[in-house]
Amino acid sequence: MKVYLDNAATTPMAPEVLEAMMPFFTTHFGNPSSTHQFGRTVKSAVETARKSIARQLNCSPMEICFTSGGTEADNMAINGAVSQLGVRHIISSEVEHHAVLHTVAHCHTDRDIRISMVDLDKQGHVNIAHLRKLLADSEEKTLVSLMHANNEIGTMIDLDEIGDICAEYGALFHSDTVQTMGHFKLDMAKTKVHFITGAAHKFHGPKGVGFLYLSKDVHIEPLIRGGSQERNMRAGTENIYGIVGMAKALEMACADIEGHQKYVQGLKDYMKKQLCEKVRNVTVNGCEDRSLYTVLNVKLPPTDNASMLLFLMDIDGIACSGGSACSSGSNQGSHVLRALHVDQKSPNVRFSFSRYTTREEIDYAVERLVHHLNPIPVMH
Amino acid sequence: MKVYLDNAATTPMAPEVLEAMMPFFTTHFGNPSSTHQFGRTVKSAVETARKSIARQLNCSPMEICFTSGGTEADNMAINGAVSQLGVRHIISSEVEHHAVLHTVAHCHTDRDIRISMVDLDKQGHVNIAHLRKLLADSEEKTLVSLMHANNEIGTMIDLDEIGDICAEYGALFHSDTVQTMGHFKLDMAKTKVHFITGAAHKFHGPKGVGFLYLSKDVHIEPLIRGGSQERNMRAGTENIYGIVGMAKALEMACADIEGHQKYVQGLKDYMKKQLCEKVRNVTVNGCEDRSLYTVLNVKLPPTDNASMLLFLMDIDGIACSGGSACSSGSNQGSHVLRALHVDQKSPNVRFSFSRYTTREEIDYAVERLVHHLNPIPVMH
Repeated sequence: MKVYLDNAATTPMAPEVLEAMMPFFTTHFGNPSSTHQFGRTVKSAVETARKSIARQLNCSPMEICFTSGGTEADNMAINGAVSQLGVRHIISSEVEHHAVLHTVAHCHTDRDIRISMVDLDKQGHVNIAHLRKLLADSEEKTLVSLMHANNEIGTMIDLDEIGDICAEYGALFHSDTVQTMGHFKLDMAKTKVHFITGAAHKFHGPKGVGFLYLSKDVHIEPLIRGGSQERNMRAGTENIYGIVGMAKALEMACADIEGHQKYVQGLKDYMKKQLCEKVRNVTVNGCEDRSLYTVLNVKLPPTDNASMLLFLMDIDGIACSGGSACSSGSNQGSHVLRALHVDQKSPNVRFSFSRYTTREEIDYAVERLVHHLNPIPVMH
Repeated sequence: MKVYLDNAATTPMAPEVLEAMMPFFTTHFGNPSSTHQFGRTVKSAVETARKSIARQLNCSPMEICFTSGGTEADNMAINGAVSQLGVRHIISSEVEHHAVLHTVAHCHTDRDIRISMVDLDKQGHVNIAHLRKLLADSEEKTLVSLMHANNEIGTMIDLDEIGDICAEYGALFHSDTVQTMGHFKLDMAKTKVHFITGAAHKFHGPKGVGFLYLSKDVHIEPLIRGGSQERNMRAGTENIYGIVGMAKALEMACADIEGHQKYVQGLKDYMKKQLCEKVRNVTVNGCEDRSLYTVLNVKLPPTDNASMLLFLMDIDGIACSGGSACSSGSNQGSHVLRALHVDQKSPNVRFSFSRYTTREEIDYAVERLVHHLNPIPVMH
């Protein structure tokens, strides 16, 4: 039996998404920058996709810029804020994705941008009083970059609350929404955020494509320069199949967010309950209330098998991870758990679910996990 | 009849390429950074693709870095040369692709890099004596960025000759090889070039994926920061289908470069002959000898229909262009033709071919072109 419980790393593509992409691999192969009919057909598909994504986010199509993924989109937002929007101070947190952390660090070393890290509690929640103090004390133009939901432990911020605070202090606000895009309702007309990001493969779309939402009151220059694609914000011939597939995947995700949420939250609750019943001293890493319903990160009791646990699960056909994709299947240290002072000697395992996950798969995973945690003593 | 003669803008994908990609849309959907079996299968496919591409270029797999396309690869090379390799002076030419020209211009305005443009003759050939003089007079660390073949007029440089000259003066050498990759044999063990670039969709592979070859003696930092993909040189979950498809497309292209060259050169010669016979005062833009066999750019006689010509061809189902993809199907000015002082009042049309183009298609295109240039006078 093969059980995939690593949907925070990537999700299987929906068959309907592949179906939507297929004509663009064959019949509609033009370059969207070509103004002849081969190009126009494809250009029209790109713009239809843009409108569809904008509709899901309740924003204008001109606020959507296609990229090669979430990482590029995060890089674009942060670099653009520094290079074109006068930002001299960035407030972020230790548990951000490396796409943010490494970009922020580079802004510090290469462009002398001041960096502040906001305090977090043990569950990864932002200390709002500290955030306010950092903003109040900031004399420079400031960008706040805080992820909507943490990809390892699932803890979420209140996007509206942080957006309002940033607005109060005149700061720009970027949020890496890669884990929540297509999983939670996002309303750009309501939320005061300047940049959010999406990666299609996190919501059953294709890999190698994503987008940056940038609100119409900010204009940045490209990170990748050349042709005039994406209104001069991102050069390079567009990944047509990717863009078409991403729009379809987001449409499907948003068509029934509540249904998916209910179903997947049910799986998470079920697995948590099973683990609590069958494994002594199991605790949940991160917040148990306001959290990604797709992610369950648990601290397991110390075991002789600790370093081998993910490997043994893998042999059983079960994919889960020790943290982000970078450390999936391994027990390498997680910068997120380290920042939250979680003991990393005991095994910490992230299970992540999707609408294609079943209870039977969870039963099997729990059964094998319990087996590896309580191995039958060898008889002598 | 639909006739696609704009293969320099993009090429139709080979059916075999799509076939190679298919399993990665369905069965093999893991994240290559995940170390469990779902990830390992995909990681292995990425590395097999890298080895395959390295084999075609006679280089080491570690010299291949996957990107979202040719534009990103060109940006990476030029930015990396400036940011990490100490380059303070760039020698380039007015007929480079905008991926190079705009990046070079940004290095000038943002990082105070000195820029020199090498003299070109009317056909777009680099003035070698001037290049030598620029190099000899350069006291700063220098990067030479000259494209292997011009995408609008087809004129080529001798990569080995320029590579030797750069080596002689201790300059770094980057060449945009987007139009020649898969169309000409490239041998990295022989040619002294530090960076070359490829875009899969120019050789019957998918859009949204490309690569940077960077020789093992240069190491640059990422343009897109985050995860440790591509040996810390390019962050972001890999475009697996794209990478697999690109390797397959390059294998197919390189399996019979001579055969393709002979066939496509035959088409180009045939069209040139037809045009010379049937259109008075037609001349070829660019070099007629050392030139891309896929591209024929012609200057047509002045006609009342000049501004409408590409539009009329498009109505007939024929895709050709006025220059690069950015101006395909339109008669907008070309920066390449402008740099070479080609009169842009007369129509200049680029026809570009592939191994899927037929003589019948060319016959039809020539017939319609002649018709539009010599419209039957309306009887009164």
